Amino acid sequence: MRLFSYFRSSAAYRVRIALNLKGISCDQVPVHLGRGEQRRDDYRAINPQGLVPALEVEGKLLTQSLPIIEYLDEAHKEPPLLPADPLDRAYVRALALIIAADVHPIQNLRILNHLRDELGQDGAGVAAWYNHWIATGLRSFEAMIAADPRSGQFCFGDAPGLADLVLVPQVFNAGRYALDMSPYPTINRIVARCNDHPAFIAAHPANQPDSEPL
Amino acid sequence: MRLFSYFRSSAAYRVRIALNLKGISCDQVPVHLGRGEQRRDDYRAINPQGLVPALEVEGKLLTQSLPIIEYLDEAHKEPPLLPADPLDRAYVRALALIIAADVHPIQNLRILNHLRDELGQDGAGVAAWYNHWIATGLRSFEAMIAADPRSGQFCFGDAPGLADLVLVPQVFNAGRYALDMSPYPTINRIVARCNDHPAFIAAHPANQPDSEPL
Repeated sequence: MRLFSYFRSSAAYRVRIALNLKGISCDQVPVHLGRGEQRRDDYRAINPQGLVPALEVEGKLLTQSLPIIEYLDEAHKEPPLLPADPLDRAYVRALALIIAADVHPIQNLRILNHLRDELGQDGAGVAAWYNHWIATGLRSFEAMIAADPRSGQFCFGDAPGLADLVLVPQVFNAGRYALDMSPYPTINRIVARCNDHPAFIAAHPANQPDSEPL
Repeated sequence: MRLFSYFRSSAAYRVRIALNLKGISCDQVPVHLGRGEQRRDDYRAINPQGLVPALEVEGKLLTQSLPIIEYLDEAHKEPPLLPADPLDRAYVRALALIIAADVHPIQNLRILNHLRDELGQDGAGVAAWYNHWIATGLRSFEAMIAADPRSGQFCFGDAPGLADLVLVPQVFNAGRYALDMSPYPTINRIVARCNDHPAFIAAHPANQPDSEPL
Protein backbone atom coordinates (compact mmCIF):
# COMPACT_ATOMS: atom_id res chain seq x y z
CA MET A 1 0.00 0.00 0.00
CA ARG A 2 1.36 3.42 -1.00
CA LEU A 3 -0.13 6.80 -0.15
CA PHE A 4 0.61 9.70 -2.48
CA SER A 5 0.52 12.62 -0.11
CA TYR A 6 1.56 16.22 0.46
CA PHE A 7 2.18 17.41 3.98
CA ARG A 8 -0.05 20.48 3.66
CA SER A 9 -2.94 18.85 1.73
CA SER A 10 -5.89 18.65 4.08
CA ALA A 11 -7.45 15.82 2.06
CA ALA A 12 -4.21 13.82 2.46
CA TYR A 13 -4.17 14.75 6.17
CA ARG A 14 -7.62 13.10 6.54
CA VAL A 15 -6.36 9.86 5.00
CA ARG A 16 -3.22 9.88 7.15
CA ILE A 17 -5.37 10.13 10.30
CA ALA A 18 -7.57 7.24 9.11
CA LEU A 19 -4.53 5.03 8.41
CA ASN A 20 -3.13 5.83 11.84
CA LEU A 21 -6.43 5.17 13.64
CA LYS A 22 -6.61 1.79 11.89
CA GLY A 23 -2.97 1.06 12.67
CA ILE A 24 -2.18 0.45 8.99
CA SER A 25 1.40 1.05 8.00
CA CYS A 26 1.78 2.47 4.56
CA ASP A 27 4.61 3.92 2.46
CA GLN A 28 4.21 7.62 1.89
CA VAL A 29 5.21 9.04 -1.50
CA PRO A 30 5.42 12.84 -1.32
CA VAL A 31 4.04 14.82 -4.28
CA HIS A 32 4.97 18.48 -3.90
CA LEU A 33 1.85 20.44 -4.87
CA GLY A 34 3.62 23.75 -4.27
CA ARG A 35 6.14 22.87 -7.00
CA GLY A 36 3.46 21.39 -9.29
CA GLU A 37 4.78 17.82 -9.10
CA GLN A 38 1.19 16.55 -9.40
CA ARG A 39 1.25 17.70 -13.03
CA ARG A 40 4.54 15.97 -13.93
CA ASP A 41 4.49 13.10 -16.41
CA ASP A 42 5.86 10.57 -13.91
CA TYR A 43 2.97 11.25 -11.51
CA ARG A 44 0.40 11.51 -14.31
CA ALA A 45 1.50 8.02 -15.42
CA ILE A 46 0.37 6.78 -12.00
CA ASN A 47 -2.61 9.09 -11.49
CA PRO A 48 -3.94 10.70 -14.70
CA GLN A 49 -6.05 13.09 -12.62
CA GLY A 50 -2.94 14.59 -11.05
CA LEU A 51 -4.53 14.77 -7.61
CA VAL A 52 -3.41 14.07 -4.08
CA PRO A 53 -4.19 12.00 -2.05
CA ALA A 54 -4.25 8.72 -3.94
CA LEU A 55 -3.87 5.29 -2.35
CA GLU A 56 -2.40 2.38 -4.27
CA VAL A 57 -3.96 -0.90 -3.09
CA GLU A 58 -3.65 -4.31 -4.77
CA GLY A 59 -2.51 -2.65 -8.01
CA LYS A 60 -5.51 -0.30 -8.08
CA LEU A 61 -5.28 3.43 -7.51
CA LEU A 62 -7.99 4.87 -5.26
CA THR A 63 -8.68 8.59 -5.43
CA GLN A 64 -10.73 11.13 -3.45
CA SER A 65 -10.14 11.13 0.29
CA LEU A 66 -13.61 10.12 1.53
CA PRO A 67 -13.92 7.05 -0.74
CA ILE A 68 -10.39 6.05 0.31
CA ILE A 69 -11.40 6.35 3.97
CA GLU A 70 -14.65 4.43 3.43
CA TYR A 71 -12.58 1.73 1.70
CA LEU A 72 -10.20 1.52 4.66
CA ASP A 73 -13.20 1.26 6.98
CA GLU A 74 -14.74 -1.57 4.93
CA ALA A 75 -11.51 -3.51 4.45
CA HIS A 76 -10.18 -3.04 8.01
CA LYS A 77 -13.12 -3.16 10.40
CA GLU A 78 -11.41 -2.15 13.68
CA PRO A 79 -11.71 0.41 15.04
CA PRO A 80 -14.77 1.52 13.04
CA LEU A 81 -14.77 5.07 11.68
CA LEU A 82 -18.56 5.08 11.25
CA PRO A 83 -21.31 4.04 13.69
CA ALA A 84 -23.32 0.87 13.07
CA ASP A 85 -26.83 2.30 12.76
CA PRO A 86 -27.75 3.59 9.27
CA LEU A 87 -29.32 6.81 10.60
CA ASP A 88 -26.24 7.51 12.71
CA ARG A 89 -23.99 6.76 9.75
CA ALA A 90 -25.93 9.30 7.68
CA TYR A 91 -25.46 11.89 10.45
CA VAL A 92 -21.69 11.38 10.66
CA ARG A 93 -21.30 11.37 6.88
CA ALA A 94 -23.32 14.61 6.70
CA LEU A 95 -20.94 16.24 9.19
CA ALA A 96 -18.00 15.09 7.08
CA LEU A 97 -19.57 16.48 3.90
CA ILE A 98 -20.31 19.88 5.41
CA ILE A 99 -16.51 20.22 5.34
CA ALA A 100 -15.51 17.95 2.46
CA ALA A 101 -18.09 19.25 -0.01
CA ASP A 102 -19.31 22.63 1.22
CA VAL A 103 -16.06 24.13 2.52
CA HIS A 104 -12.82 22.53 1.44
CA PRO A 105 -13.33 22.47 -2.37
CA ILE A 106 -14.16 26.19 -2.30
CA GLN A 107 -10.98 27.20 -0.48
CA ASN A 108 -8.33 24.88 -1.83
CA LEU A 109 -5.23 25.91 -3.73
CA ARG A 110 -6.65 25.82 -7.27
CA ILE A 111 -9.57 28.08 -6.33
CA LEU A 112 -7.32 30.58 -4.56
CA ASN A 113 -5.00 30.65 -7.58
CA HIS A 114 -7.98 31.19 -9.88
CA LEU A 115 -9.31 34.05 -7.74
CA ARG A 116 -5.90 35.74 -7.85
CA ASP A 117 -4.89 35.01 -11.45
CA GLU A 118 -8.23 35.12 -13.28
CA LEU A 119 -10.40 37.40 -11.14
CA GLY A 120 -7.62 39.77 -10.05
CA GLN A 121 -8.22 39.40 -6.31
CA ASP A 122 -5.44 40.70 -4.06
CA GLY A 123 -4.25 39.04 -0.86
CA ALA A 124 -7.01 40.62 1.22
CA GLY A 125 -9.67 39.52 -1.27
CA VAL A 126 -8.38 35.95 -1.26
CA ALA A 127 -8.22 35.89 2.55
CA ALA A 128 -11.78 37.25 2.84
CA TRP A 129 -13.07 34.54 0.47
CA TYR A 130 -11.17 31.85 2.32
CA ASN A 131 -12.41 32.80 5.75
CA HIS A 132 -15.99 33.50 4.60
CA TRP A 133 -16.56 29.96 3.36
CA ILE A 134 -14.77 28.28 6.25
CA ALA A 135 -16.82 30.31 8.74
CA THR A 136 -20.05 29.46 6.90
CA GLY A 137 -19.30 25.75 7.09
CA LEU A 138 -18.06 25.78 10.68
CA ARG A 139 -21.25 27.58 11.79
CA SER A 140 -23.37 24.72 10.39
CA PHE A 141 -21.03 22.11 11.84
CA GLU A 142 -21.02 23.76 15.28
CA ALA A 143 -24.83 24.10 15.28
CA MET A 144 -25.22 20.40 14.53
CA ILE A 145 -22.77 19.01 17.08
CA ALA A 146 -23.70 21.53 19.80
CA ALA A 147 -27.38 20.47 19.58
CA ASP A 148 -27.01 16.74 19.05
CA PRO A 149 -27.02 14.33 21.99
CA ARG A 150 -24.76 11.99 20.02
CA SER A 151 -21.78 14.34 20.49
CA GLY A 152 -19.29 13.20 23.09
CA GLN A 153 -15.58 13.62 23.58
CA PHE A 154 -15.49 13.42 19.78
CA CYS A 155 -18.06 14.43 17.14
CA PHE A 156 -19.91 11.15 17.55
CA GLY A 157 -19.54 9.56 20.96
CA ASP A 158 -16.26 9.01 22.72
CA ALA A 159 -14.10 7.54 19.96
CA PRO A 160 -12.65 9.40 16.98
CA GLY A 161 -14.22 8.77 13.59
CA LEU A 162 -14.98 10.09 10.13
CA ALA A 163 -16.33 13.48 11.20
CA ASP A 164 -13.31 14.20 13.40
CA LEU A 165 -10.76 13.29 10.79
CA VAL A 166 -12.38 15.70 8.32
CA LEU A 167 -12.87 18.46 10.90
CA VAL A 168 -9.32 18.62 12.25
CA PRO A 169 -7.55 19.41 8.93
CA GLN A 170 -10.16 22.07 8.15
CA VAL A 171 -9.57 23.78 11.50
CA PHE A 172 -5.83 23.57 10.79
CA ASN A 173 -6.53 25.42 7.50
CA ALA A 174 -8.54 28.04 9.38
CA GLY A 175 -5.26 29.17 10.93
CA ARG A 176 -3.87 30.22 7.56
CA TYR A 177 -5.62 33.59 7.62
CA ALA A 178 -6.23 33.53 11.38
CA LEU A 179 -9.99 32.93 11.31
CA ASP A 180 -11.66 33.92 14.60
CA MET A 181 -12.53 30.53 16.12
CA SER A 182 -14.36 31.86 19.18
CA PRO A 183 -17.86 31.18 17.77
CA TYR A 184 -17.19 27.42 17.70
CA PRO A 185 -16.69 26.20 21.28
CA THR A 186 -17.82 22.62 20.66
CA ILE A 187 -15.55 22.32 17.63
CA ASN A 188 -12.66 23.79 19.61
CA ARG A 189 -13.18 21.33 22.47
CA ILE A 190 -13.25 18.33 20.13
CA VAL A 191 -10.32 19.47 17.99
CA ALA A 192 -8.19 20.01 21.13
CA ARG A 193 -9.03 16.44 22.19
CA CYS A 194 -8.10 15.12 18.71
CA ASN A 195 -4.86 17.05 18.67
CA ASP A 196 -3.81 15.16 21.81
CA HIS A 197 -4.45 11.79 20.16
CA PRO A 198 -1.39 9.94 18.78
CA ALA A 199 -3.11 9.11 15.44
CA PHE A 200 -3.84 12.78 14.83
CA ILE A 201 -0.41 13.95 16.02
CA ALA A 202 1.39 11.55 13.68
CA ALA A 203 -0.76 12.74 10.75
CA HIS A 204 -0.18 16.46 11.37
CA PRO A 205 1.39 18.47 8.51
CA ALA A 206 4.35 19.29 10.78
CA ASN A 207 5.21 15.61 11.24
CA GLN A 208 5.45 14.25 7.68
CA PRO A 209 8.51 13.06 5.71
CA ASP A 210 8.01 16.01 3.33
CA SER A 211 7.19 18.63 6.00
CA GLU A 212 8.47 22.16 5.54
CA PRO A 213 8.23 25.03 8.04
CA LEU A 214 4.52 25.85 8.51
CA MET B 1 -40.72 9.84 4.88
CA ARG B 2 -40.68 13.42 3.57
CA LEU B 3 -38.20 14.92 1.12
CA PHE B 4 -37.59 18.66 1.30
CA SER B 5 -36.76 19.44 -2.29
CA TYR B 6 -36.52 22.17 -4.93
CA PHE B 7 -37.09 21.24 -8.56
CA ARG B 8 -33.89 22.91 -9.79
CA SER B 9 -31.56 21.78 -6.95
CA SER B 10 -29.16 19.26 -8.40
CA ALA B 11 -28.47 17.76 -4.97
CA ALA B 12 -32.23 17.19 -4.52
CA TYR B 13 -32.38 15.78 -8.07
CA ARG B 14 -29.79 13.13 -7.04
CA VAL B 15 -31.93 12.05 -4.08
CA ARG B 16 -35.09 11.94 -6.21
CA ILE B 17 -33.36 9.57 -8.66
CA ALA B 18 -32.20 7.33 -5.79
CA LEU B 19 -35.71 7.17 -4.31
CA ASN B 20 -37.14 6.30 -7.72
CA LEU B 21 -34.50 3.62 -8.42
CA LYS B 22 -35.32 2.03 -5.05
CA GLY B 23 -39.06 2.33 -5.69
CA ILE B 24 -39.56 4.26 -2.44
CA SER B 25 -42.57 6.54 -2.40
CA CYS B 26 -42.02 9.70 -0.44
CA ASP B 27 -43.91 12.96 0.10
CA GLN B 28 -42.16 15.90 -1.50
CA VAL B 29 -42.21 19.22 0.33
CA PRO B 30 -41.09 22.03 -2.00
CA VAL B 31 -38.77 24.69 -0.57
CA HIS B 32 -38.39 27.51 -3.08
CA LEU B 33 -34.70 28.42 -3.05
CA GLY B 34 -35.25 31.15 -5.64
CA ARG B 35 -37.58 32.94 -3.20
CA GLY B 36 -35.34 32.21 -0.18
CA GLU B 37 -37.85 29.92 1.55
CA GLN B 38 -34.92 27.89 2.95
CA ARG B 39 -34.16 30.85 5.23
CA ARG B 40 -37.72 31.23 6.55
CA ASP B 41 -38.40 30.48 10.21
CA ASP B 42 -40.85 27.68 9.47
CA TYR B 43 -38.20 25.79 7.48
CA ARG B 44 -35.39 26.67 9.91
CA ALA B 45 -37.50 25.12 12.67
CA ILE B 46 -37.29 21.84 10.73
CA ASN B 47 -33.78 22.22 9.34
CA PRO B 48 -31.59 24.76 11.17
CA GLN B 49 -29.03 24.59 8.37
CA GLY B 50 -31.58 25.92 5.88
CA LEU B 51 -30.43 23.54 3.17
CA VAL B 52 -32.14 21.39 0.56
CA PRO B 53 -32.38 18.42 0.19
CA ALA B 54 -33.26 17.04 3.59
CA LEU B 55 -34.99 13.74 4.22
CA GLU B 56 -37.17 13.17 7.27
CA VAL B 57 -37.01 9.53 8.36
CA GLU B 58 -38.31 8.07 11.63
CA GLY B 59 -38.41 11.54 13.18
CA LYS B 60 -34.79 12.28 12.25
CA LEU B 61 -33.75 14.79 9.64
CA LEU B 62 -30.99 13.63 7.29
CA THR B 63 -29.00 16.24 5.37
CA GLN B 64 -26.42 16.26 2.57
CA SER B 65 -27.41 14.35 -0.55
CA LEU B 66 -24.70 11.66 -0.57
CA PRO B 67 -25.23 10.58 3.05
CA ILE B 68 -28.98 10.48 2.36
CA ILE B 69 -28.36 8.26 -0.66
CA GLU B 70 -25.95 5.98 1.24
CA TYR B 71 -28.62 5.70 3.95
CA LEU B 72 -31.25 4.70 1.38
CA ASP B 73 -28.83 2.13 -0.01
CA GLU B 74 -28.15 0.66 3.44
CA ALA B 75 -31.78 0.63 4.57
CA HIS B 76 -33.27 -0.58 1.27
CA LYS B 77 -30.88 -3.07 -0.28
CA GLU B 78 -32.47 -3.58 -3.72
CA PRO B 79 -31.44 -2.58 -6.27
CA PRO B 80 -27.98 -1.70 -4.92
CA LEU B 81 -26.57 1.71 -5.83
CA LEU B 82 -22.99 0.64 -5.05
CA PRO B 83 -21.07 -2.48 -6.13
CA ALA B 84 -20.27 -5.21 -3.57
CA ASP B 85 -16.46 -5.20 -3.74
CA PRO B 86 -14.75 -2.58 -1.51
CA LEU B 87 -12.30 -1.49 -4.25
CA ASP B 88 -15.17 -1.09 -6.72
CA ARG B 89 -17.18 0.84 -4.15
CA ALA B 90 -14.24 3.22 -3.70
CA TYR B 91 -14.09 3.72 -7.48
CA VAL B 92 -17.80 4.55 -7.79
CA ARG B 93 -17.71 6.83 -4.75
CA ALA B 94 -14.69 8.63 -6.23
CA LEU B 95 -16.62 9.25 -9.46
CA ALA B 96 -19.51 10.64 -7.43
CA LEU B 97 -17.20 12.94 -5.44
CA ILE B 98 -15.49 14.34 -8.54
CA ILE B 99 -18.88 15.97 -9.10
CA ALA B 100 -20.27 16.27 -5.59
CA ALA B 101 -17.13 17.75 -4.02
CA ASP B 102 -14.95 19.12 -6.81
CA VAL B 103 -17.60 20.64 -9.10
CA HIS B 104 -21.04 21.20 -7.67
CA PRO B 105 -20.16 23.15 -4.48
CA ILE B 106 -18.09 25.59 -6.57
CA GLN B 107 -20.89 26.42 -8.99
CA ASN B 108 -24.02 26.39 -6.88
CA LEU B 109 -26.31 29.33 -6.28
CA ARG B 110 -24.63 30.77 -3.17
CA ILE B 111 -21.22 30.89 -4.89
CA LEU B 112 -22.63 32.54 -8.01
CA ASN B 113 -24.44 35.13 -5.87
CA HIS B 114 -21.22 35.78 -3.96
CA LEU B 115 -19.21 36.23 -7.18
CA ARG B 116 -21.78 38.74 -8.44
CA ASP B 117 -22.55 40.61 -5.21
CA GLU B 118 -19.20 40.56 -3.41
CA LEU B 119 -16.62 40.29 -6.21
CA GLY B 120 -18.50 42.39 -8.77
CA GLN B 121 -18.51 39.77 -11.51
CA ASP B 122 -20.90 40.45 -14.41
CA GLY B 123 -22.96 37.80 -16.19
CA ALA B 124 -20.09 36.81 -18.48
CA GLY B 125 -17.72 36.49 -15.53
CA VAL B 126 -20.16 34.28 -13.64
CA ALA B 127 -20.76 32.12 -16.73
CA ALA B 128 -17.02 31.71 -17.33
CA TRP B 129 -16.49 30.60 -13.71
CA TYR B 130 -19.43 28.20 -13.90
CA ASN B 131 -18.32 26.53 -17.09
CA HIS B 132 -14.62 26.45 -16.16
CA TRP B 133 -15.19 24.32 -13.05
CA ILE B 134 -17.78 22.05 -14.65
CA ALA B 135 -15.45 21.41 -17.60
CA THR B 136 -12.52 20.70 -15.26
CA GLY B 137 -14.54 18.10 -13.37
CA LEU B 138 -16.10 16.50 -16.44
CA ARG B 139 -12.65 16.09 -18.00
CA SER B 140 -11.51 14.02 -15.00
CA PHE B 141 -14.77 12.07 -14.96
CA GLU B 142 -14.61 11.33 -18.71
CA ALA B 143 -10.95 10.25 -18.46
CA MET B 144 -11.80 7.80 -15.68
CA ILE B 145 -14.86 6.16 -17.25
CA ALA B 146 -13.42 6.15 -20.79
CA ALA B 147 -10.35 4.22 -19.59
CA ASP B 148 -11.94 1.87 -17.08
CA PRO B 149 -13.12 -1.60 -18.10
CA ARG B 150 -15.81 -1.42 -15.42
CA SER B 151 -17.81 1.09 -17.48
CA GLY B 152 -20.85 -0.37 -19.21
CA GLN B 153 -24.20 0.99 -20.26
CA PHE B 154 -23.90 3.04 -17.08
CA CYS B 155 -20.86 4.38 -15.23
CA PHE B 156 -20.34 1.06 -13.47
CA GLY B 157 -21.63 -1.94 -15.39
CA ASP B 158 -25.09 -2.20 -16.87
CA ALA B 159 -27.27 -0.94 -14.05
CA PRO B 160 -27.63 2.64 -12.84
CA GLY B 161 -25.99 3.56 -9.55
CA LEU B 162 -24.43 6.25 -7.41
CA ALA B 163 -22.11 7.69 -10.05
CA ASP B 164 -24.92 8.02 -12.60
CA LEU B 165 -27.31 9.74 -10.26
CA VAL B 166 -24.67 12.36 -9.42
CA LEU B 167 -23.53 12.78 -13.04
CA VAL B 168 -26.93 13.37 -14.64
CA PRO B 169 -27.92 16.46 -12.58
CA GLN B 170 -24.46 17.96 -13.18
CA VAL B 171 -24.81 17.54 -16.94
CA PHE B 172 -28.27 19.10 -16.69
CA ASN B 173 -26.59 22.09 -14.98
CA ALA B 174 -24.02 22.26 -17.78
CA GLY B 175 -26.84 23.37 -20.07
CA ARG B 176 -27.40 26.57 -18.07
CA TYR B 177 -24.59 28.41 -19.85
CA ALA B 178 -24.48 26.01 -22.81
CA LEU B 179 -21.17 24.29 -21.98
CA ASP B 180 -19.67 22.55 -25.04
CA MET B 181 -20.23 18.86 -24.22
CA SER B 182 -18.41 17.46 -27.27
CA PRO B 183 -15.23 16.55 -25.32
CA TYR B 184 -17.17 14.03 -23.20
CA PRO B 185 -18.48 11.25 -25.48
CA THR B 186 -18.61 8.54 -22.80
CA ILE B 187 -20.47 10.84 -20.41
CA ASN B 188 -22.88 11.82 -23.20
CA ARG B 189 -23.60 8.20 -24.04
CA ILE B 190 -24.31 7.26 -20.44
CA VAL B 191 -26.37 10.37 -19.67
CA ALA B 192 -28.52 9.72 -22.76
CA ARG B 193 -29.11 6.18 -21.50
CA CYS B 194 -30.04 7.49 -18.03
CA ASN B 195 -32.36 10.11 -19.47
CA ASP B 196 -34.38 7.29 -21.07
CA HIS B 197 -34.77 5.50 -17.73
CA PRO B 198 -38.10 5.99 -15.89
CA ALA B 199 -36.42 6.67 -12.52
CA PHE B 200 -34.37 9.49 -14.03
CA ILE B 201 -37.29 10.88 -16.06
CA ALA B 202 -39.54 11.06 -13.00
CA ALA B 203 -36.77 12.87 -11.06
CA HIS B 204 -36.10 15.48 -13.75
CA PRO B 205 -36.51 19.15 -12.75
CA ALA B 206 -39.23 19.50 -15.39
CA ASN B 207 -41.38 16.82 -13.75
CA GLN B 208 -41.67 17.94 -10.11
CA PRO B 209 -44.69 19.24 -8.18
CA ASP B 210 -42.93 22.62 -7.90
CA SER B 211 -41.55 22.75 -11.46
CA GLU B 212 -41.44 26.08 -13.27
CA PRO B 213 -40.50 26.70 -16.89
CA LEU B 214 -36.81 25.75 -17.32
